[in-house]
Amino acid sequence: MLRLTTISPILKNTAFSSLRLATTGRRFNSAFTIPETHKGVIFYEHGGKLEYKDLPIPKPKPNEILVNVKYSGVCHTDLHAWKGDWPLPVKLPLIGGHEGAGVVVARGENVKNFELGDLAGIKWLNGSCMSCELCESGHEANCLQADLSGYTHDGSFAQYATADAIQAAKIPKGTDLAEVAPILCAGVTVYKALKTADLKPGDWVCISGASGGLGSLATQYAKAMGLRVIGIDGGEGKKELFEKCGGEVFIDFRETKDIVSAIQEATNGGPHGVINVSVSEAAISMSTQYVRPTGTVVLVGLPANAYVKSEVFSHVVKSINIKGSYVGNRADTREALDFFIRGLVKSPIKIIGLSELPEAFKLMEQGKVLGRMVVDTTR
Amino acid sequence: MLRLTTISPILKNTAFSSLRLATTGRRFNSAFTIPETHKGVIFYEHGGKLEYKDLPIPKPKPNEILVNVKYSGVCHTDLHAWKGDWPLPVKLPLIGGHEGAGVVVARGENVKNFELGDLAGIKWLNGSCMSCELCESGHEANCLQADLSGYTHDGSFAQYATADAIQAAKIPKGTDLAEVAPILCAGVTVYKALKTADLKPGDWVCISGASGGLGSLATQYAKAMGLRVIGIDGGEGKKELFEKCGGEVFIDFRETKDIVSAIQEATNGGPHGVINVSVSEAAISMSTQYVRPTGTVVLVGLPANAYVKSEVFSHVVKSINIKGSYVGNRADTREALDFFIRGLVKSPIKIIGLSELPEAFKLMEQGKVLGRMVVDTTR
Amino acid sequence: MLRLTTISPILKNTAFSSLRLATTGRRFNSAFTIPETHKGVIFYEHGGKLEYKDLPIPKPKPNEILVNVKYSGVCHTDLHAWKGDWPLPVKLPLIGGHEGAGVVVARGENVKNFELGDLAGIKWLNGSCMSCELCESGHEANCLQADLSGYTHDGSFAQYATADAIQAAKIPKGTDLAEVAPILCAGVTVYKALKTADLKPGDWVCISGASGGLGSLATQYAKAMGLRVIGIDGGEGKKELFEKCGGEVFIDFRETKDIVSAIQEATNGGPHGVINVSVSEAAISMSTQYVRPTGTVVLVGLPANAYVKSEVFSHVVKSINIKGSYVGNRADTREALDFFIRGLVKSPIKIIGLSELPEAFKLMEQGKVLGRMVVDTTR
Amino acid sequence: MLRLTTISPILKNTAFSSLRLATTGRRFNSAFTIPETHKGVIFYEHGGKLEYKDLPIPKPKPNEILVNVKYSGVCHTDLHAWKGDWPLPVKLPLIGGHEGAGVVVARGENVKNFELGDLAGIKWLNGSCMSCELCESGHEANCLQADLSGYTHDGSFAQYATADAIQAAKIPKGTDLAEVAPILCAGVTVYKALKTADLKPGDWVCISGASGGLGSLATQYAKAMGLRVIGIDGGEGKKELFEKCGGEVFIDFRETKDIVSAIQEATNGGPHGVINVSVSEAAISMSTQYVRPTGTVVLVGLPANAYVKSEVFSHVVKSINIKGSYVGNRADTREALDFFIRGLVKSPIKIIGLSELPEAFKLMEQGKVLGRMVVDTTR
Repeated sequence: MLRLTTISPILKNTAFSSLRLATTGRRFNSAFTIPETHKGVIFYEHGGKLEYKDLPIPKPKPNEILVNVKYSGVCHTDLHAWKGDWPLPVKLPLIGGHEGAGVVVARGENVKNFELGDLAGIKWLNGSCMSCELCESGHEANCLQADLSGYTHDGSFAQYATADAIQAAKIPKGTDLAEVAPILCAGVTVYKALKTADLKPGDWVCISGASGGLGSLATQYAKAMGLRVIGIDGGEGKKELFEKCGGEVFIDFRETKDIVSAIQEATNGGPHGVINVSVSEAAISMSTQYVRPTGTVVLVGLPANAYVKSEVFSHVVKSINIKGSYVGNRADTREALDFFIRGLVKSPIKIIGLSELPEAFKLMEQGKVLGRMVVDTTR
Repeated sequence: MLRLTTISPILKNTAFSSLRLATTGRRFNSAFTIPETHKGVIFYEHGGKLEYKDLPIPKPKPNEILVNVKYSGVCHTDLHAWKGDWPLPVKLPLIGGHEGAGVVVARGENVKNFELGDLAGIKWLNGSCMSCELCESGHEANCLQADLSGYTHDGSFAQYATADAIQAAKIPKGTDLAEVAPILCAGVTVYKALKTADLKPGDWVCISGASGGLGSLATQYAKAMGLRVIGIDGGEGKKELFEKCGGEVFIDFRETKDIVSAIQEATNGGPHGVINVSVSEAAISMSTQYVRPTGTVVLVGLPANAYVKSEVFSHVVKSINIKGSYVGNRADTREALDFFIRGLVKSPIKIIGLSELPEAFKLMEQGKVLGRMVVDTTR
Repeated sequence: MLRLTTISPILKNTAFSSLRLATTGRRFNSAFTIPETHKGVIFYEHGGKLEYKDLPIPKPKPNEILVNVKYSGVCHTDLHAWKGDWPLPVKLPLIGGHEGAGVVVARGENVKNFELGDLAGIKWLNGSCMSCELCESGHEANCLQADLSGYTHDGSFAQYATADAIQAAKIPKGTDLAEVAPILCAGVTVYKALKTADLKPGDWVCISGASGGLGSLATQYAKAMGLRVIGIDGGEGKKELFEKCGGEVFIDFRETKDIVSAIQEATNGGPHGVINVSVSEAAISMSTQYVRPTGTVVLVGLPANAYVKSEVFSHVVKSINIKGSYVGNRADTREALDFFIRGLVKSPIKIIGLSELPEAFKLMEQGKVLGRMVVDTTR
Repeated sequence: MLRLTTISPILKNTAFSSLRLATTGRRFNSAFTIPETHKGVIFYEHGGKLEYKDLPIPKPKPNEILVNVKYSGVCHTDLHAWKGDWPLPVKLPLIGGHEGAGVVVARGENVKNFELGDLAGIKWLNGSCMSCELCESGHEANCLQADLSGYTHDGSFAQYATADAIQAAKIPKGTDLAEVAPILCAGVTVYKALKTADLKPGDWVCISGASGGLGSLATQYAKAMGLRVIGIDGGEGKKELFEKCGGEVFIDFRETKDIVSAIQEATNGGPHGVINVSVSEAAISMSTQYVRPTGTVVLVGLPANAYVKSEVFSHVVKSINIKGSYVGNRADTREALDFFIRGLVKSPIKIIGLSELPEAFKLMEQGKVLGRMVVDTTR
């Protein structure tokens, strides 16, 4: 496992404890006993206090499973949900979190694809209508009625959470639930972006923001997919992390004068695809310049109020593409998890207690987090 | 045939005269006799005088054919070549023109795919290296060594012109050479753009600039490809022309307040693809707003110094694509011609004499041309 | 509407009567009243008596809708289900039928995509797990747990039937329910096969068995998709029906000596795709010979114990494909219906009473049916 | 380098000697001197004597290069050309060989993509028309006018050979010419087959005939492309070679009773793709049984007079594909070479003298060759 250096005294690394199922409390249609209340972090207004407290446990609908969340990754999207600065409206009050890994302890009567005791993941896409044109074509995440964990549906920053059984991720027994948590959103997102770039093994892909949380996962997935990786980032230890992840050529934006030329030269004409996990508006637009003719620029990072700009003449004459990639569907999730389970992708995590989430948010805002923080819901 | 109203007294419609092969002059390795000189329009500096005069006839290289051009379409690109306002350098002095239809009268020793007497078309892409990564993948137009008719290679505004036999278009015997001329560039370009949009029959496509020269061809091709067409344009007679070409819903930008909503409503969520033949920078960027989620915006028109702008958050959440489409390759050309030959696409032309080209350029600059002007090289 | 000549005195054409909702009986969670029993045709063993009688009405599960079936198409698959001669096991006793068009009169608590009073279609694929690898990728029909109407789930040869709301077809208000019925299976199947052939507008497609029930629909869909159609069939009136459906070249297998050569000549090298709706083993294997190099042979018809044979050397050197196409998924169904609703595809039907189904089966076995028989469930 | 054990006393391993350019003889338009004659192996009738003798050196046409062949791989196709037992007619007399690696020593006047002194490869596809529908779409190998090295065009079993410059392979300076030789046909062929299977990283691919000359290359390419490989073969040392090449699961057909079940179990439902490099007719047909639903069976091996048989019902219900894959085009060749040059694929060779070719043919016929024999043209 690729573990990162502690960057704050509160971030204590704890061993992964064996799964413990609750032993008291009311029952649904399950053999598992579920307590009356659970611990969770909730907020009542945007930017308001993040309260760690006892909350009622949600009851699964006929199509839902109830998951006893053991670990949950912390994502920048959680910050946006709390602040309410994205154009999508948020449910209030809200329990955030959308990278929850745990154990199925109850299920609705319609659920057939999960047994009690199975491991399951709570993803960003909690559920969708499954009957619109987008859902029909495997674009469930783009469904206009998409229900989002930790955004429009209470999420995984709590000991229990519900999810539509069709969308919940299946996690094989024996999987490390702390390490798999970030794969459920971060991993799937970059894997989907790489698929969206429509590359073939042997092609060059550029990861813009290569050594951040998403970038280091993207580099590993790209490598496992047979791609050659060129990465852009800047700062101490970034090049080393990139190369550890399987990257081949590193461009330090602090030291490179003409980034466009440097990338085109290193890749013999520009990368066939670019994955923009960086949220720099300038970096995103620059990627339309260095991408290879007929290549694809993928937009992934979600800066607020930002525009990608591309010069029309070059765009046409070079016949390039700019594609948006949101989050993965069910198949993407299964596939992204499979790479992780086969050991081809490591998840660089730092485990903290769920009660420490407010402090974690502060560190994220200050940009002081390297790798992914994961909360242990037992403390 | 869809013929348009005369908009200038100089534009006299002439009947298509039967093919006449030159009967005097020197010979290459051909049974056809070729004269010493031919008539053509040449210019020596950007914006300089367009001279109609006697010029030497080019000699085909081993891989080239010599075409006795009968008719040649006049395109906006010819204006750009003359002015020199595009970022691509132009050969000087230059004989412009890249929509030439005529008869093969000589060929180099390596040429096997044309016989003397065959009909052939001079396209924008005169030749390419055929051995780079782009050529290998059918992206010959994007080849960095592409040789362009009427731009880097003397073109079809003359009675004789050469072309690489591999790239020259095959035109079946019996084809009307005046009407087919604009298909060689305008037709192929919009057909390629429609292919680039990656739609399936029954999908909606929006043509932005639906009733111009490119737009009216695009509407007809789209219809023949089983697509449903919504068009945007404004001005007298535009709606009628659009509907004559097979369009289903017309949006007049002069009368529609909220174009984005109007288009999304008419197409039940936005068109699956958008073909931007309009060169309005604002219209191009607007197309990223009304396109259907997971749909494709295609850039075709080539405004100078213009940018397409797309809001990143929406681009990602709607997972849209922006693709540049340049000109067709050999297969696209053959297919686009086939639709024309089968009578599914009509070419709205106005025949003028080659000697009248300078006046035609003026009319184009003034935006006074409806449909496509085609020069008759015999006068 | 393309109506066919009566071929049996029992086949009386009845006008489509306006939708009548049941007015007596028990209620579910619906505003519609549903009777205690309904009329249906049931059999208790393979090849046993087809009994038209009063039966209990099924209760929808949380994810199901209850449809008051008005009309149901009769398909060869219904014969196979009754005989039990396919390798897939059949539920017994069974109410057959999988082309049912009617009105939603009740729905389970989880159903959100249908309102009471909506029109809905009962398809071959009644429901699937939606969580296996195949369902995730839009191959729901190939799901190993697929639940099949009129095969493993009581079907539409009755006045009421249930279906998973996710899989049930949405039919727009105002649609002719008798004519749309055959589209639900026959139409979707041939449309899917055409998509599977992966052709582009302007390509040639050969329909082997062009003037049968599936073939005449395939020809119309192909035409609407911009394809050029060559058809193979034999018998009186077959050529006329084919041409009425939009076919371009007809090959009568009774009169053509060298079918392979005739097809290759007419299509300038062979059709780009072949749709085998014929169940002749010899015809299927022959299609691997006349298909164009790099083209695709699609298998659709389901002869029992038959093999497709292809000579390996030619298969490789011509780089052809043989693809199986089963039935459409949700998106294919929506799209196939859309072509019908837009009037681009006509459904050649013959309406009979549900009580006449046993006699209809006999006619089918004797091969005496031209077009599709549709049962009216009210008589 | 993966070198194999000697299996015959005549197969002496020789070190790769540095490139030596001829220093005497006549000149074309080149700075290189070319001798009057060269050594080559020629035969005058099918099955006739293979004569090693002095022959005239071919003169390159305007579009050709003349290559001083240093090494050439020996392929089963060379045996077929000599015997004349394939349905394609062969040029007589013939110099065989189509895996030649050497140095460009002369070029025709039209050639622009090779400089004298460049390294080049003589491939199976020596040249094609470049203007038919198949060539236009990148299916040059399927061109009806394809010119084939060592079959319809004198090949690389000689010190000098010509090739169309467009089709000749570019080999980077510094490449080991002996080891690269088999990549030019065997490597490209299996790489193309893997592309034809249309798989994505993480998918399972089955190589039927996994430890033969083609199979061991296929396994390595598959591994480099991010695929999981299951191999079928039988015999001593086969499993070890397979695993050395990166294979994951080996099925020994001599020991496994139910191969279909064993493969489906090991791959959780069957491999997504199957590459049939084995020429066993039974093995080829069996692959249609164990392939995963919606998966693809690729035909590569060319047994004479053999048929692939697939049961129609299963073919349809499982929606499988059977695709023929011939040889790679220009892009496939460049890509396949790139994997080799990056060290991801090793070529298991045995170097012998060109004069020993007749004995090598005997060993091949007896099936005694493990890996690929490569002739050194200097002896």
